[in-house]
Amino acid sequence: MKDKRPLILVSNDDGITSKGIFTLVEAMKTLGEVLVVAPDSPQSGMGHAITVGETLRLEENHIFDGVKAYQCSGTPADCVKIARHFVLKDKRQPDIVVSGINHGSNTSISVLYSGTMSAAIEGAIEGTPAIGFSLCDYAHDADFSHTIEPVIAITKQVLEKGLPKGVALNVNFPPKRNEPLKGIRICRQANAKWVEEFDERYDPNGRRYFWMAGNFVNFDKGEDNDEWAIANNYVSVVPCQFDLTAHSAIPILNEDWDILR
Amino acid sequence: MKDKRPLILVSNDDGITSKGIFTLVEAMKTLGEVLVVAPDSPQSGMGHAITVGETLRLEENHIFDGVKAYQCSGTPADCVKIARHFVLKDKRQPDIVVSGINHGSNTSISVLYSGTMSAAIEGAIEGTPAIGFSLCDYAHDADFSHTIEPVIAITKQVLEKGLPKGVALNVNFPPKRNEPLKGIRICRQANAKWVEEFDERYDPNGRRYFWMAGNFVNFDKGEDNDEWAIANNYVSVVPCQFDLTAHSAIPILNEDWDILR
Repeated sequence: MKDKRPLILVSNDDGITSKGIFTLVEAMKTLGEVLVVAPDSPQSGMGHAITVGETLRLEENHIFDGVKAYQCSGTPADCVKIARHFVLKDKRQPDIVVSGINHGSNTSISVLYSGTMSAAIEGAIEGTPAIGFSLCDYAHDADFSHTIEPVIAITKQVLEKGLPKGVALNVNFPPKRNEPLKGIRICRQANAKWVEEFDERYDPNGRRYFWMAGNFVNFDKGEDNDEWAIANNYVSVVPCQFDLTAHSAIPILNEDWDILR
Repeated sequence: MKDKRPLILVSNDDGITSKGIFTLVEAMKTLGEVLVVAPDSPQSGMGHAITVGETLRLEENHIFDGVKAYQCSGTPADCVKIARHFVLKDKRQPDIVVSGINHGSNTSISVLYSGTMSAAIEGAIEGTPAIGFSLCDYAHDADFSHTIEPVIAITKQVLEKGLPKGVALNVNFPPKRNEPLKGIRICRQANAKWVEEFDERYDPNGRRYFWMAGNFVNFDKGEDNDEWAIANNYVSVVPCQFDLTAHSAIPILNEDWDILR
């Protein structure tokens, strides 16, 4: 396999026509053979959802120049699963899974709600190195130009060195500013959360509905987390795991509880 | 607050009319004041999805005897958010969040795809003790009778002793067998995964579609994990965290990578 160009599976959560995935596909073409399987419509906030009890559609798509691509009616996690177990069934499997570039931040607690990262985590579950890329700019026509060089550098590094077992990378880029990026930092997930507000309205039939809006609140004073890195114009790289076990809590519960036997 | 009966927020992912949530509500009524905010339709496999860019509906529901209840058009995570920030806005907040009882297993890697656990994790993010309960039996009319006593015992234990910061419990029950449950075990998430198969079909208009089906594959030989506990007729309790950082990978990447500065 080492003599071949790497096979790079690209997905995202903003949908196959978004500017972010075009930027990522163009960057990946410099590194290997690219296959795109991405949602046919935006899937933001889908977290690690999969399609259960409903059917999936998959259609070939010709919008990427010289790249085999499919659009899928499912979630980002569905896309990686169908790529691996249908499109590439009995064929060479991807050497890396990359997802994004997301239009909007996936730093801190947002990683939990991130469809972009769920595609990367699916790669990691299968033992394939995987990276989710996000730009901290929600605009549909966001400027991705400053992300291209570090996207290529980080992907190349992961292709060369691999990743620890059970780990996928959550990479976030600061919005394009007037100064160049300061560099790349390995970070932990910042301690922050969203505080929601529900905007109550009435439809033309007089029935109540809501818009959910969130305010991001950062409690973290450290300089080793992703929020600090983005605020200080660094690219943040958080290694993420899919073992959710709070291992340090196991002896505490074993000690505290009196209902175990 | 200690002189009052605890306020217990109940949600789930199978929808507000499922047998599992009825069982949970009846159990919780023995422990405190109950408020239900649950999806108005099944949300299985929704992972930690939230509703972004679409509206939400919330309607009062009278199906639970003597219990205030609302059905919401959103995901389990949406339900906990709207409970806290709209239904209970400026009011007393819940002392505990419980979710389930799910019709089907949420052991091992399934925790990632679990709407049941996303409701519990939302509780933990807000600093409220939280538990997701699941029965390893997918039947619509599953027998929950053996879960009631341990559901009450575990919830009571958490109300009394709290939980470590940033932790929610993922509790799974074996299916009802001919022998009584052996006990309750604190476990780690088993090392296992789903291997998908895509069943390709054609609709009456000749357009292709797929059903995704998964086979669960357990690689874990240990006796300290949730799969082992369920197979051996124990209740499994896995403490789960929402900090996804693979902390042990940070020094490895800092050492290995040559693109950092």
